[in-house]
Amino acid sequence: MAQKIEIWFEFASTYSYLTVSRAAPLLEAAKVPFAWKPFLLGPIFRAKGWDTSPFNLEAAKGAYMWRDVARRAARFGLPFQRPPIFPMHTVQAARIMTAALGQPWSSDFARAVFAAEFARGEDISDAGVLARALETCTDDPAHWLQQAQQDETKAALRATTDQAAALGLFGAPSFRVGDELFWGDDRLEDAILWAQERR
Amino acid sequence: MAQKIEIWFEFASTYSYLTVSRAAPLLEAAKVPFAWKPFLLGPIFRAKGWDTSPFNLEAAKGAYMWRDVARRAARFGLPFQRPPIFPMHTVQAARIMTAALGQPWSSDFARAVFAAEFARGEDISDAGVLARALETCTDDPAHWLQQAQQDETKAALRATTDQAAALGLFGAPSFRVGDELFWGDDRLEDAILWAQERR
Repeated sequence: MAQKIEIWFEFASTYSYLTVSRAAPLLEAAKVPFAWKPFLLGPIFRAKGWDTSPFNLEAAKGAYMWRDVARRAARFGLPFQRPPIFPMHTVQAARIMTAALGQPWSSDFARAVFAAEFARGEDISDAGVLARALETCTDDPAHWLQQAQQDETKAALRATTDQAAALGLFGAPSFRVGDELFWGDDRLEDAILWAQERR
Repeated sequence: MAQKIEIWFEFASTYSYLTVSRAAPLLEAAKVPFAWKPFLLGPIFRAKGWDTSPFNLEAAKGAYMWRDVARRAARFGLPFQRPPIFPMHTVQAARIMTAALGQPWSSDFARAVFAAEFARGEDISDAGVLARALETCTDDPAHWLQQAQQDETKAALRATTDQAAALGLFGAPSFRVGDELFWGDDRLEDAILWAQERR
């Protein structure tokens, strides 16, 4: 049995879109077990004094990122457009994902949210957009929208975000295999190899 | 004939060490012509208000970088150690490289400087270290140390650095293929493919 990979991601993150959209078949083929770790980058950025994404704070890096993500999405066969808002407010999406982590459809939900955001440019802070993503996964979207508002769910997302900071995470996606950290969609294959070689 | 790749690099940069050390056989096998573009990241960082590398300014990202570079160097079969000084002052090394760009041994010089810095931890701002790197390439190191101090050489390096900023470069290594920009040692293979597909 290969080691487990934790996939730490943030719904606002373009490179997390690539990872969440393409990871499942790679992990399955490699027989590597995994766990989703939805977290918020906002508190980690604010602790450095940043009030938005570094891609907005650094113009040249931001311009490059949009081109790089478009190029890589094309290579992976994923639809992509630059949404009108970036970064989006993702706390509601992350809370629903946190509440749904035990469900067999949680991967589908994450992919549906990212597709709304980066394939169709929809605002995923909108409750209607999130409800439609849930509708593709479950017969009872209202239940999960409600679960997302429970104190327990809010506390769990806060705890995951605190853990991210404590583990030294500074961007998304990040992959943890044991104590080994990999950062960026372009390290997904490296993380999978690492997990396989340490079974 | 494939398109030409410009390899923009900074002697202080850990990921530039990986690229300069491993690029030649890949480019040769792919029959992709290339040109070295030594430049200085310092002025680009200072324009953002940074007085050192972002890997020093952001502790978590810096800790990750050292681990990531060590892991990738091992995978490429390259010796690596974290040098006692980071980032080093690289203006003299970059001036010598600029003066030597027309020479058949310029690639060897770049590799020798990076090996001193990241394989052996030597200070490449030291004239003796640079002279020893030159000795592996030419019978007349003194001539090239002198060439590096010519006004023409200094102006050429300043012009390359200004051009880097104008092109939107924000880190090293960066690869340019026509108008297409790729950033990071982990995009070297993508840049080579891009150049091959657009012959």
